[in-house]
Amino acid sequence: MGLRFANRVQSMKASAVREMLKLTAAGDVISFAGGLPPNECLPVDETQAVVARVLAEHGPRALQYSTTEGCASLRAAIAGRMRRRLGVEITAEDVLVTTGSQQALDLTGKVFLDEGDVVFCESPTYLAAISAFRPFGAGFADVPSDEHGMVVTELERMLAACERRALVYVVPDFQNPSGRTWSLERRLELLQVAERYEVPVVEDAPYRELRFEGEELPALFSLDRGGRVVFTSTFSKILSPGLRVGWIAAPLPLLEKYVLAKQAADLHTPTLTQLIVSAFVEAHDLDAHIAGIRRVCRERRDAMLRALAQHLPRQVGVTRPAGGLFLWLELPQPLDAREWLRLCLARGVAFVAGDAFHPNGGGEHAARICFSGTPEPRIEEGVKRMAAALRELPGAGSLSWPTRAAA
Amino acid sequence: MGLRFANRVQSMKASAVREMLKLTAAGDVISFAGGLPPNECLPVDETQAVVARVLAEHGPRALQYSTTEGCASLRAAIAGRMRRRLGVEITAEDVLVTTGSQQALDLTGKVFLDEGDVVFCESPTYLAAISAFRPFGAGFADVPSDEHGMVVTELERMLAACERRALVYVVPDFQNPSGRTWSLERRLELLQVAERYEVPVVEDAPYRELRFEGEELPALFSLDRGGRVVFTSTFSKILSPGLRVGWIAAPLPLLEKYVLAKQAADLHTPTLTQLIVSAFVEAHDLDAHIAGIRRVCRERRDAMLRALAQHLPRQVGVTRPAGGLFLWLELPQPLDAREWLRLCLARGVAFVAGDAFHPNGGGEHAARICFSGTPEPRIEEGVKRMAAALRELPGAGSLSWPTRAAA
Repeated sequence: MGLRFANRVQSMKASAVREMLKLTAAGDVISFAGGLPPNECLPVDETQAVVARVLAEHGPRALQYSTTEGCASLRAAIAGRMRRRLGVEITAEDVLVTTGSQQALDLTGKVFLDEGDVVFCESPTYLAAISAFRPFGAGFADVPSDEHGMVVTELERMLAACERRALVYVVPDFQNPSGRTWSLERRLELLQVAERYEVPVVEDAPYRELRFEGEELPALFSLDRGGRVVFTSTFSKILSPGLRVGWIAAPLPLLEKYVLAKQAADLHTPTLTQLIVSAFVEAHDLDAHIAGIRRVCRERRDAMLRALAQHLPRQVGVTRPAGGLFLWLELPQPLDAREWLRLCLARGVAFVAGDAFHPNGGGEHAARICFSGTPEPRIEEGVKRMAAALRELPGAGSLSWPTRAAA
Repeated sequence: MGLRFANRVQSMKASAVREMLKLTAAGDVISFAGGLPPNECLPVDETQAVVARVLAEHGPRALQYSTTEGCASLRAAIAGRMRRRLGVEITAEDVLVTTGSQQALDLTGKVFLDEGDVVFCESPTYLAAISAFRPFGAGFADVPSDEHGMVVTELERMLAACERRALVYVVPDFQNPSGRTWSLERRLELLQVAERYEVPVVEDAPYRELRFEGEELPALFSLDRGGRVVFTSTFSKILSPGLRVGWIAAPLPLLEKYVLAKQAADLHTPTLTQLIVSAFVEAHDLDAHIAGIRRVCRERRDAMLRALAQHLPRQVGVTRPAGGLFLWLELPQPLDAREWLRLCLARGVAFVAGDAFHPNGGGEHAARICFSGTPEPRIEEGVKRMAAALRELPGAGSLSWPTRAAA
């Protein structure tokens, strides 16, 4: 055929999670892989009523083209919610609706990244951000991170050593994949350093509202005084991922660039799904709805932590996230989580091996576990399968198994 | 603030059409600018019923994440329709669902275009394709085109002279903006030349089903024997643009690259809108629905041609499209369509000036007129306003006005 593709195609690879989603769509596989919100919390009946309302109110406009920035009612609803929840002074004009927050990442690449530029991110970092940024020819500086968030002194050192610093990408609340939440101190430090090095900061906050315990911490977007934070979030985890409605809030000089990039990407997010979300927010108590999701996710986190403690050897490190959908496992060296995953898939349980979250290598001993998408009894069954697979893993002989663990 | 954007941001500009859409959303403006299908044909009641069916049948799955390739039922429906309508042997596996066909253009840029590559296109060409390809650093070779389509001998000459030929982009049926349709001969010639120069061909076919008269001609995708045609179309003009459901059909080695690019762009097209489209196609006779759209569009084309003949000077060139949504006006030199547009906007009527469709300059004397989005009486009123504005245009004194034309 003799067809030539763009160079960037070589850097594209199928997302481990998306491939897993396909796999787990078939058969009796318990999947802790994809970051699915609980099926039980998806508002099926409410959507039916809301669509009736949208079509009655908007008629053909609900099915016609709309503006790139997004539907006025939804932009206003998002701005209102951000004012109330984050204490920021923004209006609908400061909001761009996106086709899920994955699009916000793609647009971020378009707006900020030239070939050879460097993205500074946590280690580990969100794998779909790697997939979004890499095709723009970006490299990654994965900054050492601990239980308080990114180690900002390390970030500063790395920024100073880099001539092509393009942006800092972070998930400060219940990070994907680690589940960790940044301390206030680290948030303030990050903004100071970003100010000093004049880099934009992209704050990805899809899980922020899913806090199970402890005090909410201010968003970077709320703390920013320099007009350099781009905030992105989504209705995927608090309402429905299948609607693909996310958003960006940013200072206008930044947002304008995103609008231009989005225009060329898909003209606009579907009118109907936008109006469904804004009508849902108008007709229902979104806070109460989110409280329900939070409760289910917390129960599942607890069930997952119990099952892991009960069935896995104590040498396996487990994070305890205060919210969100994910926790992070670390096998003792030299055990390889990719090998473990292969054994797990054969036994009908899936997760994502940690290497997917490391743009420059690493993470071979780690695994991301999503606890939110699986009902409780299946969580324990899945962990039992993981434990059984782990027993088969070369090098697992030296592990100390819990005395009550099932083989 | 000191923030630095990617170089490509300089090449991004707001689409003339999208900006016009915003403008015309307010006040008593008659817009011939955006390519809107008739509001009267948007299936509002049917959508209500279809959503009920989708939610009953799929439950939470309709609101959950789905695969990047698209929902199985929709991919199968698209493949089935293409088999029947285009006589091509494809299956659901050959189809990727996109978030409108604008996304197909963006993904085309991602898959094929490196900085400095050249896209070969008709002259004039679709402005949103220019916006989609330019951010990837592509240049354009706009190939002379006449009423039979692209002049392929010119294309061949230009391909031979170019070292960075990346792809040929064409709209063979009822082209946007000119309204012209390629002859069979030109289609066959194009494929021969593409084969000889080993370039992929992107066939953008959103208007193909909206033929008012004459014989349907085979799609390039149907004629292709070399596996080098990427076919893209959309439900925007035959069902609803607000749902943003388009697709790509292509040989698998090509389609696989598009899937990877889409994964990073927005994970997947909204599950709900995909299921709405596939359930609509299942529950209703889409051919009959399209016949209704075709009838309305044809009536509006005729009303537009009548009004233009009645109110504009005979020196204004007017194409007579055999289908689609658009026709193309050419003012006699040295009249400037951009000036005319300014005067028109002041009188409450909008179109898109021809320069927007010329990536390398030109088209200043031309205008794209969309006839499909405006009911008949408003069409004549809009053309009267255009005529009144034209009388004010510097240099218009020498035009011969129809004797019955209203001032």
